[in-house]
Amino acid sequence: MKHNFGAGPCILPQNVFKEAASAVMDFNGLSILEVSHRHKDFVAVMDEAMDLVKKALNVPAGYSVAYLQGGATLGFTIAALNMMRDNKKAGYINTGTWATGAIKEAKKIGIDVNVLASSEDKNFSYIPKDYSIPDELDFVHFTSNNTIYGTQFHAIPKTNSPLICDMSSDIFSKEINVADFDLIYAGAQKNLGPAGATLYIVKDDVLGKSTSPFMPTYLDLKQQIEKESMLNTPPVFSIYVAMLNLRDLIANGGIAAIEAKNNAKAALLYQEIDSNPLFKGTVAKEDRSRMNATFLLEDESHQEIFDKMWKEAGVVGLPGHRSTGGYRASMYNALPLESVQVLVDVIKEFTKKNG
Amino acid sequence: MKHNFGAGPCILPQNVFKEAASAVMDFNGLSILEVSHRHKDFVAVMDEAMDLVKKALNVPAGYSVAYLQGGATLGFTIAALNMMRDNKKAGYINTGTWATGAIKEAKKIGIDVNVLASSEDKNFSYIPKDYSIPDELDFVHFTSNNTIYGTQFHAIPKTNSPLICDMSSDIFSKEINVADFDLIYAGAQKNLGPAGATLYIVKDDVLGKSTSPFMPTYLDLKQQIEKESMLNTPPVFSIYVAMLNLRDLIANGGIAAIEAKNNAKAALLYQEIDSNPLFKGTVAKEDRSRMNATFLLEDESHQEIFDKMWKEAGVVGLPGHRSTGGYRASMYNALPLESVQVLVDVIKEFTKKNG
Repeated sequence: MKHNFGAGPCILPQNVFKEAASAVMDFNGLSILEVSHRHKDFVAVMDEAMDLVKKALNVPAGYSVAYLQGGATLGFTIAALNMMRDNKKAGYINTGTWATGAIKEAKKIGIDVNVLASSEDKNFSYIPKDYSIPDELDFVHFTSNNTIYGTQFHAIPKTNSPLICDMSSDIFSKEINVADFDLIYAGAQKNLGPAGATLYIVKDDVLGKSTSPFMPTYLDLKQQIEKESMLNTPPVFSIYVAMLNLRDLIANGGIAAIEAKNNAKAALLYQEIDSNPLFKGTVAKEDRSRMNATFLLEDESHQEIFDKMWKEAGVVGLPGHRSTGGYRASMYNALPLESVQVLVDVIKEFTKKNG
Repeated sequence: MKHNFGAGPCILPQNVFKEAASAVMDFNGLSILEVSHRHKDFVAVMDEAMDLVKKALNVPAGYSVAYLQGGATLGFTIAALNMMRDNKKAGYINTGTWATGAIKEAKKIGIDVNVLASSEDKNFSYIPKDYSIPDELDFVHFTSNNTIYGTQFHAIPKTNSPLICDMSSDIFSKEINVADFDLIYAGAQKNLGPAGATLYIVKDDVLGKSTSPFMPTYLDLKQQIEKESMLNTPPVFSIYVAMLNLRDLIANGGIAAIEAKNNAKAALLYQEIDSNPLFKGTVAKEDRSRMNATFLLEDESHQEIFDKMWKEAGVVGLPGHRSTGGYRASMYNALPLESVQVLVDVIKEFTKKNG
């Protein structure tokens, strides 16, 4: 039994893996991998995969859903391209790697980026809070959860400008109010499905209003949405598995239920880290991510012993990102509370022996 | 037993489906869907998937391979963006839908497109041959095989300009000389693997020389290749299955062996169409595709009877593209000769009863 704390691509429900494997062998008589995306059986999958997003997140009328490719990295460009207006100015909140990447890509397509706030001064260990947002911005962009540093916005930025959010690593983990946003995008490979699909939720009103002189068809959300995610061959299998996963999410109580479970998992681990003299969290407590808990050993010379212990317990994916070191326990939707308990037990046992 | 003549996503070898399904359940102790793309086990998969492309196609030194996302549709933009030079002029050969799409996307990014030749005058039923190619083009672009009309280039255009080819629907089906090209790109979902990955084979010399003022990082082949297809999370499962498929291809004699099989399949079907008074091919004989054979009933009132017969024989995916009607038998690498024989037998039986 493995306990997969990996940061993504990450654990999905075991029954989703089983159904996905089964469809690779037999999906209405063919492999899901050889079915035409234009076949009615796959069109039904695509429709359901889009509808379940709306159902899970209570997406209001006037919003559309699309599945594209390219991950959030291409999303940085797509978001900025589609939301560019006459001012060609936008506000970005820099909470680390992904937000920094989004800023870079916005500049590349000619947007005058106003970095409204940044937590770079403390190695992105907190979420900036006191900053003013000027008028005359085409949009404000933020990254809801930073997988590398382990920070998460627990309240959205207050602005009258259109709000864009890269929700790659916490979408479907907690309730959100979609109406607060003009555009949400998210790589699938955390709580939605396997790598290879990227989700967009967009207010219909914003479509087709870009002032960018450059707009390749693939990057134009208006055309993507008009074609119902079938502008060209979509990532069939990734979308099929996302559909299975969303079915599972809704069958198990939807976002409200999973949010409660996620809160319980995060509380269990952070409580141990906070009360344990051998470990320390790396992030301001009020800004801690409930998806990715980052922590360090107080005494790094203990690393070899600790690593041996969690590996023996079947824990995988615990090392921190290569840019930060330390540890990162990613606790996505499908990670059971029992796995967090296994990790906490290892920490306790390690502490008993080495404290 | 189904005989899948679908145009793509399409049939892959049955043992590839089996291994893929198995890895969804267990890939070194985890599902392949939950493995980090940075884990050494997947890095090994990616490396092998790139190496096997080089091995299968005898890719010479000085060329690199990358897996991206977005299909050939995003490839239209990526190719033109990366190959744009000082002239900002390029020559395109228009052989139908995909070539037309490539032309549209090149224009969108500011390339002055010279349509060197087009077969639009006869509904794209042939490959243009007599045309001159002016100097001062940044590149020449063509689409090696048209899946919709059933045409295929059996010789490459003669030019001194850098040659770019969208090989989505015939790459790995026949021997090619990679050194003839500066850039090859191909959606995976024909002879390479499932939908969701897009292959690029590029001459290293051309990288980083674009004159486009617009170059998002994701679309920059130089950065994609420097990051070894790991600029961001790649489509893990699609690449894993492509690797399995390439292993299978090479284990069964490589391109030379599959080309002989493909030629035999195409010959069997075209011979029947040509000798049968109830059917007619739609394409100039010398330009027929060995991947997608398009044909019509001489008497359309027979359609219902014929459709019933091939469906009863287990044939699927035979209807022509929605823009052309008629029939299209796609005979990709993994389609067995036996399946083509089944179709030919149906045609013969239909002819005996209705001729």
